[in-house]
Amino acid sequence: MDQSLSQAKPWEGQFAERIKTMRHSATRDLFGAAARDDMISFSGGMPDVRVMPEDVLRVALEGTIADKGEALQYGSTDGREKTKKIVVELMKELGVEHICPDDLIITSGAQQALDLIAKVFINPGDTILVEAPTYLGALQAFSSYQPNFKSVPFDDNGIRVDLLEEVLKEIGPRGAKFLYTIPTFQNPGGVTMALERRKRLIELCREYEITIIEDDPYSRLRYAGEHIPCLRSMDENVVYLGTFSKIFAPGLRLGWVLAPQDILGRINLAKQGADLCGSAFTQIVAEHYFEETDWKATLRDFIATYGSRREAMLEACEEYLPKEVHFTKPEGGFFLWLTLPEYINTDDMLQEALDRGVTFVPGSGCFADYQHNSMRLAFCYEKEEDIKEGIRRLAKIIAEHLESDKPQD
Amino acid sequence: MDQSLSQAKPWEGQFAERIKTMRHSATRDLFGAAARDDMISFSGGMPDVRVMPEDVLRVALEGTIADKGEALQYGSTDGREKTKKIVVELMKELGVEHICPDDLIITSGAQQALDLIAKVFINPGDTILVEAPTYLGALQAFSSYQPNFKSVPFDDNGIRVDLLEEVLKEIGPRGAKFLYTIPTFQNPGGVTMALERRKRLIELCREYEITIIEDDPYSRLRYAGEHIPCLRSMDENVVYLGTFSKIFAPGLRLGWVLAPQDILGRINLAKQGADLCGSAFTQIVAEHYFEETDWKATLRDFIATYGSRREAMLEACEEYLPKEVHFTKPEGGFFLWLTLPEYINTDDMLQEALDRGVTFVPGSGCFADYQHNSMRLAFCYEKEEDIKEGIRRLAKIIAEHLESDKPQD
Repeated sequence: MDQSLSQAKPWEGQFAERIKTMRHSATRDLFGAAARDDMISFSGGMPDVRVMPEDVLRVALEGTIADKGEALQYGSTDGREKTKKIVVELMKELGVEHICPDDLIITSGAQQALDLIAKVFINPGDTILVEAPTYLGALQAFSSYQPNFKSVPFDDNGIRVDLLEEVLKEIGPRGAKFLYTIPTFQNPGGVTMALERRKRLIELCREYEITIIEDDPYSRLRYAGEHIPCLRSMDENVVYLGTFSKIFAPGLRLGWVLAPQDILGRINLAKQGADLCGSAFTQIVAEHYFEETDWKATLRDFIATYGSRREAMLEACEEYLPKEVHFTKPEGGFFLWLTLPEYINTDDMLQEALDRGVTFVPGSGCFADYQHNSMRLAFCYEKEEDIKEGIRRLAKIIAEHLESDKPQD
Repeated sequence: MDQSLSQAKPWEGQFAERIKTMRHSATRDLFGAAARDDMISFSGGMPDVRVMPEDVLRVALEGTIADKGEALQYGSTDGREKTKKIVVELMKELGVEHICPDDLIITSGAQQALDLIAKVFINPGDTILVEAPTYLGALQAFSSYQPNFKSVPFDDNGIRVDLLEEVLKEIGPRGAKFLYTIPTFQNPGGVTMALERRKRLIELCREYEITIIEDDPYSRLRYAGEHIPCLRSMDENVVYLGTFSKIFAPGLRLGWVLAPQDILGRINLAKQGADLCGSAFTQIVAEHYFEETDWKATLRDFIATYGSRREAMLEACEEYLPKEVHFTKPEGGFFLWLTLPEYINTDDMLQEALDRGVTFVPGSGCFADYQHNSMRLAFCYEKEEDIKEGIRRLAKIIAEHLESDKPQD
């Protein structure tokens, strides 16, 4: 065969339309940089898995070897019954009663659930409602399906239900395929939706017949304040996403979606084509972890660790950040959110920050529409003294930009 | 809040168009049935992981505990460098030289690669080329993206390149987004594309500028005959899918896609939204398996096991099947394919087969267009004596239907 023919590229110009709307994650790219020894990382929402004791892991893996026949084999698309039973128990502790294993599907992290939900709901051009800012991974998952995003801002008490109502009036009943919200310790905002707002949100979505997608990865990681019930515990029509990533480990890629049967059946169908089934191996590791180890003690260690780091970051922000910078004061989760004067573009600061040994996530990636004067900081991964030093470095860069980028009158 | 409002179902009528084209897998449903003790399963293509020694697994898991910091954490979207290096070595053994880790992405089984390829290539209505019959999981993955399937039959020497040429003439250059083929030990056919056909296939696809997707899960499982080079070793423009499922274990959900950079970049972007990243945990288990255990010895055990079962099934087919039934004689892989007289509908036999303690996959699921007189039998999972008994049971059902379903003249 003529090897030169091999130079032709038959795929050129052949990619699908949806490629054009797909969003790139700056955070993902930063994982490489964050791995450098001298780098202080505030970018990834990485649990500090160093907290996990080796002997605990050994118990889970010994159990997995005993179950090797099932652990190494294909499993069912919707996940293992036993894993789902553990999720049912976890949900009960969050006040979600009267559910059974058949009401949920185990996914490859909650991220896969986001992708599958988008896949079963979104036609190109359909409207979906998101918070502004919102989880960038959700924007990535959804944007592959070419929706029209409508954004609703939040304040320190969560989504602005008054502004949501305005949007709903504008689009009318069933005017959006769903509303996606992270009510508790929002990513990236760090804010938590107040109970009254939750009630009003549910009321509004009932009135306008909008399906609510509640993403709840962090609610067990509370370091201050009082527990607030999840939306799903207040309305069984809410589609709820959970994950083992923050209460066990993200490396297993285990999450779940709890949804009404009509929706769950479609998600299951979509999941067959997407991956046949998730990993039985990691599900079995998780089963032994939750059944045979004192996982609540380990979770308490996680909470103590993150709680101190949150304190350290809030203190450092108070001490070092210029007064023009607003930052949220999360009671749990992984993140706080900085809002800078409108003339600042945090995209422009990133390379500088990397050069000076600190990373953050520019806020622009977290908006469906482009907004550039904010950033997300994760306090979960670095030790207290490094958090202090990292904020000091960052504050210096910010201060310089406040001065140099100031528009001339 | 008024609980009765909760009865409204805001999702009704709100599902995406693509739901209508999604295909359901009869095989997936059968996994449940196949788990019954008395059932002889010829349905799932399940490797017999009972062959895997426990001490081998223990070595891999001890290594994973040592690497727990990375195993429990998020990883990069494209997969771990170390895992990819192992794949590069595996590909070299298949005659694919001059590739590096950056040329591939680790996926959740090859199934995720199928989904991602469809996602980056297919607009609704686009034509894609598949073999008839073809892998039902591929039909499931692709159909979510609403393509127009064109099918090309195979015979005992693989895809009918003469018929492929006719289709290509009809659709013209770039008239299809890609051709999807399983050249070696085809699923479900069991047939292998002859070398001359491979050359001609590549020639034709170059001439008509069609991207080739080569799915190659089974080529290391050869029990008879001579190795035939994979398409990717003959043309670097071929997109190649591989998997650890058949040379290690499907429960880990690890596969890979090797593709030109233009395509790989898009797949990576799509994968960010689909799952953020695969499991670092299972990748590290695989790394220790391939680096620290005598995996080739284990693979030889797999091959010896499957080889005897293939023999047993071929013998039983010769002995029991009515002469009206044609069956393929695979030299490797997991499956053989039965073609029955056209008046037979194997969908109608399934419940009967389950009642009599044997499972198979009705052929209808393996065709883009509906054809109903065939079935797929997997010989990989059951022991020789059970294979014999299973074929005996099945032959009886078939014989009864040949008689009862015969059209009256």
